[in-house]
Amino acid sequence: MKTEWINPFVESVYSLCSTMLSCGVERGQLGLAKGQTAAGGDITALIGLSGMARGMVALSFPAGTARAMVGRLLSIGEEEIDESVSDGVAELVNIVAGSAKAKFSNGNGSDIISLGLPTVIHGGSQIIGCPSHSTWLDVPFSSDLGPFSLRITFELEPTKGGN
Amino acid sequence: MKTEWINPFVESVYSLCSTMLSCGVERGQLGLAKGQTAAGGDITALIGLSGMARGMVALSFPAGTARAMVGRLLSIGEEEIDESVSDGVAELVNIVAGSAKAKFSNGNGSDIISLGLPTVIHGGSQIIGCPSHSTWLDVPFSSDLGPFSLRITFELEPTKGGN
Repeated sequence: MKTEWINPFVESVYSLCSTMLSCGVERGQLGLAKGQTAAGGDITALIGLSGMARGMVALSFPAGTARAMVGRLLSIGEEEIDESVSDGVAELVNIVAGSAKAKFSNGNGSDIISLGLPTVIHGGSQIIGCPSHSTWLDVPFSSDLGPFSLRITFELEPTKGGN
Repeated sequence: MKTEWINPFVESVYSLCSTMLSCGVERGQLGLAKGQTAAGGDITALIGLSGMARGMVALSFPAGTARAMVGRLLSIGEEEIDESVSDGVAELVNIVAGSAKAKFSNGNGSDIISLGLPTVIHGGSQIIGCPSHSTWLDVPFSSDLGPFSLRITFELEPTKGGN
């Protein structure tokens, strides 16, 4: 995977933070992880990409960031957040991947990436791996609502372009 | 999601065990999990589905089962298994989902499901959640190589049939 492919996803994170979460955000240094990598958060929301690009997009949050972002996204108070955290972070990764997906096109304006359903993993010591020939790109962010990270792996399948 | 949609995946597990792993396998009782559910294993391999069916397929293994199955799948010895476990379980979920995918068709023989890239999660206390309106179907298996479980969530999107 090429590092420039991550840009539409990074732009989507900026746009999510500025428009829907009304929070300042700054990206850190892009990292590469081959094979296994610690998820770096208490909660990870994943969504599968298929079509011309096959892969996975993950947002990993410490619990505090997840609660703050979900509270802001859904405009709910502390007491309602607990039951909504999974749905909320699933929605966050759906927004980021969906808005990035719209920026990939095959020239005639049709989408070349399909999205799966988001899945959320909770648990302290998650390590996310992927087939060893593929690479995860990892972008840490710091925001007014706390740190989080965006992690992406995908492979282009040019033979599927346009379908 | 309807329970009969899980059958192609269950058949794929049987076929994987009998042909590629040469091990006996028996399925347990189908369970339903709404919202969050413990992954029930040390290692979980996930693959996203998109297209007419959007969702996620997960295979969860205790470490012993994962090692035994990967050793058998790749015909490798104990000393090589450690570095191959992630790739091996990723391949297992890819085989199960790929072979089930071929059984869903839109009537003119073309596939209606696209697969993403497999992702592997390691870690003791994983809880896998999904948007609260969707449901995971959970099928436990016992096999000669140890217990494991198949977990699936998906939603059909009829408007996308054939694309």
